[in-house]
Amino acid sequence: MKLAEIASLLGLELQGEGSGDISGIAGLAEAGPGQLTFLFNTAYKPYLKETRASAVILKKSDAAGIAINCLFSDNPRMEWARVASLFDPLPPPSGIVHAQSIIDASARMADNVSVGPFCVIESGATIGKGVVLGPGCYIGRNVSIGENTRVHANVSIYHEVSIGRDCIIHSGTVIGSDGFGFEFDSQSASLKKIPQIYSVVVGDEVELGANVTIDRGALKDTLVGKGVKLDNQVHIGHGVSVGDHTAISGNTAIGGSTRIGNYCLIGGGVGIIDNIEVVDRTEITSLTFVSRPITEPGRYTSGTGLMKNSDWKRNIVGFAKLSELIKRVRTLEKVNKP
Amino acid sequence: MKLAEIASLLGLELQGEGSGDISGIAGLAEAGPGQLTFLFNTAYKPYLKETRASAVILKKSDAAGIAINCLFSDNPRMEWARVASLFDPLPPPSGIVHAQSIIDASARMADNVSVGPFCVIESGATIGKGVVLGPGCYIGRNVSIGENTRVHANVSIYHEVSIGRDCIIHSGTVIGSDGFGFEFDSQSASLKKIPQIYSVVVGDEVELGANVTIDRGALKDTLVGKGVKLDNQVHIGHGVSVGDHTAISGNTAIGGSTRIGNYCLIGGGVGIIDNIEVVDRTEITSLTFVSRPITEPGRYTSGTGLMKNSDWKRNIVGFAKLSELIKRVRTLEKVNKP
Amino acid sequence: MKLAEIASLLGLELQGEGSGDISGIAGLAEAGPGQLTFLFNTAYKPYLKETRASAVILKKSDAAGIAINCLFSDNPRMEWARVASLFDPLPPPSGIVHAQSIIDASARMADNVSVGPFCVIESGATIGKGVVLGPGCYIGRNVSIGENTRVHANVSIYHEVSIGRDCIIHSGTVIGSDGFGFEFDSQSASLKKIPQIYSVVVGDEVELGANVTIDRGALKDTLVGKGVKLDNQVHIGHGVSVGDHTAISGNTAIGGSTRIGNYCLIGGGVGIIDNIEVVDRTEITSLTFVSRPITEPGRYTSGTGLMKNSDWKRNIVGFAKLSELIKRVRTLEKVNKP
Repeated sequence: MKLAEIASLLGLELQGEGSGDISGIAGLAEAGPGQLTFLFNTAYKPYLKETRASAVILKKSDAAGIAINCLFSDNPRMEWARVASLFDPLPPPSGIVHAQSIIDASARMADNVSVGPFCVIESGATIGKGVVLGPGCYIGRNVSIGENTRVHANVSIYHEVSIGRDCIIHSGTVIGSDGFGFEFDSQSASLKKIPQIYSVVVGDEVELGANVTIDRGALKDTLVGKGVKLDNQVHIGHGVSVGDHTAISGNTAIGGSTRIGNYCLIGGGVGIIDNIEVVDRTEITSLTFVSRPITEPGRYTSGTGLMKNSDWKRNIVGFAKLSELIKRVRTLEKVNKP
Repeated sequence: MKLAEIASLLGLELQGEGSGDISGIAGLAEAGPGQLTFLFNTAYKPYLKETRASAVILKKSDAAGIAINCLFSDNPRMEWARVASLFDPLPPPSGIVHAQSIIDASARMADNVSVGPFCVIESGATIGKGVVLGPGCYIGRNVSIGENTRVHANVSIYHEVSIGRDCIIHSGTVIGSDGFGFEFDSQSASLKKIPQIYSVVVGDEVELGANVTIDRGALKDTLVGKGVKLDNQVHIGHGVSVGDHTAISGNTAIGGSTRIGNYCLIGGGVGIIDNIEVVDRTEITSLTFVSRPITEPGRYTSGTGLMKNSDWKRNIVGFAKLSELIKRVRTLEKVNKP
Repeated sequence: MKLAEIASLLGLELQGEGSGDISGIAGLAEAGPGQLTFLFNTAYKPYLKETRASAVILKKSDAAGIAINCLFSDNPRMEWARVASLFDPLPPPSGIVHAQSIIDASARMADNVSVGPFCVIESGATIGKGVVLGPGCYIGRNVSIGENTRVHANVSIYHEVSIGRDCIIHSGTVIGSDGFGFEFDSQSASLKKIPQIYSVVVGDEVELGANVTIDRGALKDTLVGKGVKLDNQVHIGHGVSVGDHTAISGNTAIGGSTRIGNYCLIGGGVGIIDNIEVVDRTEITSLTFVSRPITEPGRYTSGTGLMKNSDWKRNIVGFAKLSELIKRVRTLEKVNKP
């Protein structure tokens, strides 16, 4: 692809020479000849002098004194999202239902569905137009999957789960496994299972990373709203509701029946207890433990800062005496009252 | 099902009209006409006035002044566990061994076993009566699975692992992968693998959530006791022993050779170091880091409370100076000695 | 195997009787007659008197007054790594490509490859000599896997990923899933996907535990260096680079584009933010949140120590007032200036 073609495709102003071939994109530091790069942040402008890229997408205001070929954009990150797809090696759908899959006769398969080898689709399932299932997927009884959703290899979707349209579900993800619901039975001195009879409803345009788990509900469906993005290994407990357009980073776990608002940004390794509410537009930093409801939008954190282990060992002794220390200071303040 | 039939099935006293059809159960807030709901906690009694449910299971002592049809129980949560199974859409076992599975001739398959498509059962495996294997499961050499255990789709069980009876194992779970055992070899300046030659023994009535991992042992078997319940994405290190009837919530990791007692309740996102003992009936709150043995039953926690990130930034500065602060207070106390 | 044969195989000095059969190895406490055990640490020497093992590998300096048969080694842990393989029940490769696998005609399959049932190998893949694929693996388009790498059951490897030689990859692991890259589009008020067009390069002699996830890069490849060992459920974000011979314990998550040095030791449940550098030979204790670059080798920690929940509740009140407390102490110090 010529640079001028990319400029025209994206509708961007070109400064410099448009006739060179562009074979791909790369970061400022990594890009080589024939590659297109990006200046996302004015602070990195000095690196533009060193880049070996053939062209850069940047704000016009960052372009002064730049010798390299430029495409101007008010939002280089959005252009990135658009231009990257031009070079995406993701294999296209096969457009066929592989003969080595087991599909129940009662499953409703729309047109233009791709099903890889060794998939199982149970009775009553509904697979929308343009859906792509990678090899080894399990689609349980009465599951429905909306149009153009792509399910990668080795995904397991339990009975009755509903998935929206235009979703992407990565390998190893499990949707609709039983919620963690037990009641201690004092007679047998053991935990008795509470059947998890509700299901999971995943909205449109959702992306679920690899090895995500979303449990089915006990007294109501687990809900994942429209446009939600879950990173790898996120765990969503039974009856949780995740609001529209919320993004959750890797290895975060959300306890049962908790309600997460819309447009939240939740970091990685976070734990959120069960049965609480987190309001819209809440931001939670990584490895934070959310032990109580969040009723006001804002940025929340728990934990201590990082330190040398030797310092930490001294300071945690102090932490364990904090409540006592405060009393001692109060006593001193009484003595020293002016 | 008529409400009166449910009352009779559960052996509960009915107050009101028993002839209405009950089509399902739901939470107090979500239940609609034709549904049965529950009052688990007297504090929620005001919501009973607003519920659209057709009937409620509750303590007789909570029933005064209630217009809705009632079933009385001393333990509504235990009734929930019983009544939910009446409405469970979980598909029944097929009762057949699917022709598209590869089962070694030396595997011992009991009667009434269900095996989904694309399973592999290796030589010497023993599959008990009534066992159900979902599609795509891998059952390694010499594995044994006890009666009536249900294994959902895409589970991997390595060679020599033993699973008890009446267990439930959810999709994506891996049992018997190698423990994390390496020794630094200074000659090659690299980590040398220690073969993990022991196995995993899982007791009866265990439930393992989705994408759980349980490693095989190096010098002894990894043990998961009777009635243990592990939530999704829990990681159990090699040589760990989890005592009977202990429950562990999502994304918790337990380091190698640690011994967890019976009847423990361990929250989500917890980390427990290797080679320690945690006594029976210990409770550990979510995201706690257990950095030392727990020798006394009780409830344990680490971490700080949740706060606004702006406050946190100020307070962690204080934390990093805590040991110094305590010295300063001590100095002040000496000056102010009465 | 006779004890004398083991001594000769390992080149170790034998003290005592070498004609006894050794049927396996076990820990000091667990070993029984016919088993070989180890004394890794002089502190455990008293347990040698109680062991029922038939022989022990230990340092010669620990052998004084020991009645049991001994093999002397300067490094009993390294002998353990060597001797354990003698008793490893890991099934040998089948040496065949199972007829029930789907292998594209354009895939290059070297000699002596073992492929289990229900694998899919896409076009352009290159599978090296001696590679073993367990059942149900998915090998995407143009993937390459180096010689003698063993991939256990139900692993998913996306298109273009490159895996080195002599690696071990455990079940449920996913390599090459999309990185977590989105840009907020204010026009549609939704998160727009940034295609993740780069790939993952895994070096030689790497071991990946069960249910690990490694995302493909957006602007450069994700790199896992030579000899790296990742425990179960570790998550590696897009564009991360993990240096050679680094070991990372279970459930740890590393944010995008972060560069981890060589020979690091990272504990379990750790979270490391995106876009930072962690220098060679850094040690990070479990459940630590690495919120900033680490520029100096050493041992790092965050969090508080473990305590009774009742004490914790008092102390976190203090933590939330720490910055205020420091001011109060400063005020007192002014008043008390000598």
